Amino acid sequence: MESQKIQNNNQDLKLQNENLQNEIISFLKSRGFVYPSSEIYGGLSGVYDYGHYGYLLIKNIKDAWMKSMIQERDDVYALDSAIFMHKNTWIASGHVAGFNDPQIDCKKCKFRMRADHTLEDFGISADKQSIEWINAELDKLRVDKKLICEKCGSSDLTEAKVFSLMVKSNLGSPTDSLSEENVMYLRPETCGGIYLEYKNTIDSLHPKLPFGIAQIGKAFRNEITAKQFVFRTREFEQMEMQYFFNPYLENGNVKETYFKNWQDYRWNFYLNYGIDQNRLKWYKHEKLAHYASDAYDIEYKYKMLGDSFKELEGIHQRGDWDLSQHSKFSGVDLSYFDEESKQRFLPYIMETSVGVARMMLAFIDNAYKVEDLSKEVINENGEKVIKQDSRIVMKLDKRLSPIKVAVLPLSKKENLQNKAREIYKELSKVYMCEYDESGSIGKRYRRQDEIGTPYIITIDFDTMDETNINFETVTIRDRDSMSQERIDIKSIKSYIRSKFD
Amino acid sequence: MESQKIQNNNQDLKLQNENLQNEIISFLKSRGFVYPSSEIYGGLSGVYDYGHYGYLLIKNIKDAWMKSMIQERDDVYALDSAIFMHKNTWIASGHVAGFNDPQIDCKKCKFRMRADHTLEDFGISADKQSIEWINAELDKLRVDKKLICEKCGSSDLTEAKVFSLMVKSNLGSPTDSLSEENVMYLRPETCGGIYLEYKNTIDSLHPKLPFGIAQIGKAFRNEITAKQFVFRTREFEQMEMQYFFNPYLENGNVKETYFKNWQDYRWNFYLNYGIDQNRLKWYKHEKLAHYASDAYDIEYKYKMLGDSFKELEGIHQRGDWDLSQHSKFSGVDLSYFDEESKQRFLPYIMETSVGVARMMLAFIDNAYKVEDLSKEVINENGEKVIKQDSRIVMKLDKRLSPIKVAVLPLSKKENLQNKAREIYKELSKVYMCEYDESGSIGKRYRRQDEIGTPYIITIDFDTMDETNINFETVTIRDRDSMSQERIDIKSIKSYIRSKFD
Repeated sequence: MESQKIQNNNQDLKLQNENLQNEIISFLKSRGFVYPSSEIYGGLSGVYDYGHYGYLLIKNIKDAWMKSMIQERDDVYALDSAIFMHKNTWIASGHVAGFNDPQIDCKKCKFRMRADHTLEDFGISADKQSIEWINAELDKLRVDKKLICEKCGSSDLTEAKVFSLMVKSNLGSPTDSLSEENVMYLRPETCGGIYLEYKNTIDSLHPKLPFGIAQIGKAFRNEITAKQFVFRTREFEQMEMQYFFNPYLENGNVKETYFKNWQDYRWNFYLNYGIDQNRLKWYKHEKLAHYASDAYDIEYKYKMLGDSFKELEGIHQRGDWDLSQHSKFSGVDLSYFDEESKQRFLPYIMETSVGVARMMLAFIDNAYKVEDLSKEVINENGEKVIKQDSRIVMKLDKRLSPIKVAVLPLSKKENLQNKAREIYKELSKVYMCEYDESGSIGKRYRRQDEIGTPYIITIDFDTMDETNINFETVTIRDRDSMSQERIDIKSIKSYIRSKFD
Repeated sequence: MESQKIQNNNQDLKLQNENLQNEIISFLKSRGFVYPSSEIYGGLSGVYDYGHYGYLLIKNIKDAWMKSMIQERDDVYALDSAIFMHKNTWIASGHVAGFNDPQIDCKKCKFRMRADHTLEDFGISADKQSIEWINAELDKLRVDKKLICEKCGSSDLTEAKVFSLMVKSNLGSPTDSLSEENVMYLRPETCGGIYLEYKNTIDSLHPKLPFGIAQIGKAFRNEITAKQFVFRTREFEQMEMQYFFNPYLENGNVKETYFKNWQDYRWNFYLNYGIDQNRLKWYKHEKLAHYASDAYDIEYKYKMLGDSFKELEGIHQRGDWDLSQHSKFSGVDLSYFDEESKQRFLPYIMETSVGVARMMLAFIDNAYKVEDLSKEVINENGEKVIKQDSRIVMKLDKRLSPIKVAVLPLSKKENLQNKAREIYKELSKVYMCEYDESGSIGKRYRRQDEIGTPYIITIDFDTMDETNINFETVTIRDRDSMSQERIDIKSIKSYIRSKFD
């Protein structure tokens, strides 16, 4: 009985989590944040589009990242390298030979499964395990007929195969062949472009070690199955920074010092933009890639992904592996001559790497609240009763909010509307604003709460002077406290500016 | 003789233009704006990377475009749709069947030529001509043995063939085949994503006609040959806006009115950001795509591309062609019901479309100046002589400049450096700034002129008070006039802010 109860509770929890996930996905679609791609043509799995508010939120997130990485530091440079690179880039990096996932096909219905995920359904974690280990585990289950097709239920499955995650194209090729000679890869990660432009960066900007190169851009992976909404998609965007340093300096353990500094810097970024500290933790990789010497992930506990901790950002020591491989495969010397120490060497690299959509999802997950606003009221019979009310509110850091200020006329009176439009127009020169005159004032407040607008200016009649022509004051409503302040109409700009300074 | 002279003059001019082109390309590489892609691996034709200053300039250009299209208008919404879409998108749009260029191969050395460009070498403009017409013209030349291989000079060439510009990939496919069943196209233009998300935009944002959807994103074309630096590349970025409207309204000729308004709006964008009006002109398409009813391009006269007018931005009437094709191929009704007029119809579309790199190149071409600063001086013999001097300066609109403020200590004195760093750090919270202490002050000024920095703050000893501890003033140098102003150190922030307000 007790175990049955626990199982029921677990099932309830699973359902609750799935409900929350579906609720937020549906909310994000209906509010113009995230749309499934190509929906009118039946959809395209593993690809998403971002609507008006999604675009604005993502732009603010990317700007915040770039501001903290480039503008506020004097040791990191920006780069925008292309998606396409010479194909040898990915031979040198090891991706062509080794960037694979295990895959199992159903012999009966031909359904395809990503086998490490299948393993996870049996409670066996495949996280950061080798393909060989995963395939061995899968084979045990398959032979025991425990493994069944997710679609048709058949246990007649193929052995686990190796599937390349590299997306291939015929760019620049005159034929439709993807032969070795003609193939061009879409980058599976953006950092390859940083290694290839390391030399041009040095030759043009003359930075001294240590220095970093940061960039934001699209990457592509042929994921066998794409699940978990925008968390894992075939087309995605990354924000990566590679920090080049001299590991041979004698003044202390620079490698560990840089690593620790960057760990703190990136961790504090999330706190600075309002992520709940209790939903963040460090994960230390025990099993390292052969070139890595130390690797940590910042994990975020996504309420909407089963309330479980998942990788948000990686901070990894890569040593001189990347530069030495690209030196070797290109024949170009990528060593650095340090004027001070008179040493010539390949700099070591440490990286910070985060997916834009994962970060956006963490900010939304952290900000999305359903607040109970029910209160005791006296009904018509003079009895105390509870009036049910609630609101959805996105308590985003205001610097990330898609819309900074909404300007609303209290009602459809023409002079209110004209004044509101005038204020909207003036503020729009500086901030992303919205003017809204449709529906009741309460509904319009809720609409702005839902998209996370921190300030709402309302123009009402209380503010007119005795001539009934001039407006003297407006109210400004705060999203989080829902309290309103009445301010002089002439001080709107300085009031809003003070909030964003 | 006379004709020989003209020919010589023309050759001189051609050489001069080529020199300017090479000069600017080399300048942009050495100053960290534009790098050829994958250089250490021998290069990747038709693909470019953007360095630190190139990234910042492009970001400012994209932000300016989005500000004018989204923030300062209440009738245009943003979108960020994925590069990959359902393949039927490009069957419906006609790209799979008809997005082709003529191609000629050399039978001897196998060199491949884009045949309309080859034609242009004969002084025959292939601009906006059909493939059939081009191929017929080429065949005449080929039969007459006038057409020769650009590489080996042989006249043994293939007939002109049709080459698809669509880049193909195996995204989401378990095999390496590009068969019709498995192929996925990389978008050749971003507007396809706007048509596919037109319905979700309406369902989530409930806009009323007329409204626009704007987006910035990458697109890919398998150009046979990629020439003219970043002007025509295989991987490129577009800024496109599609404006949806009701063409059946009875109050006047709305179609022409919207078109005229958008023409003015986009033209004024360039003037507003400092493009020389004399280098802009309208080109009216005489030969229209079958769905278009009116099409104009804004052309810019690129000094560095032969001082010739070339397409910068297109403003085109597309009618209801796109929505009707996607309705037809998807089976989803994309009509709009207008509450006021009680009409149901497919909105008409007009678009504005511009390439990011073309716009960047126009801004650079417009801003790049070599200024003669030679002046008469008295030499040691008391004679008047001309002291040769010049500077390269990028007179970019300051809102587009990669770096807004450079902060320089006059010399390597520690207290100057500390004060300069302190000011740099404070300003960096708001603006993209640079601190520079290396080299003579004159060289550092020139370096900032070259990357277009509008303001340089210099910290010098003249500014110290009698205690020799406190700094009271700094100088601020204006890039264009090269004049310096001395201001109170406490007013730096408000001074700079006033320049960017």
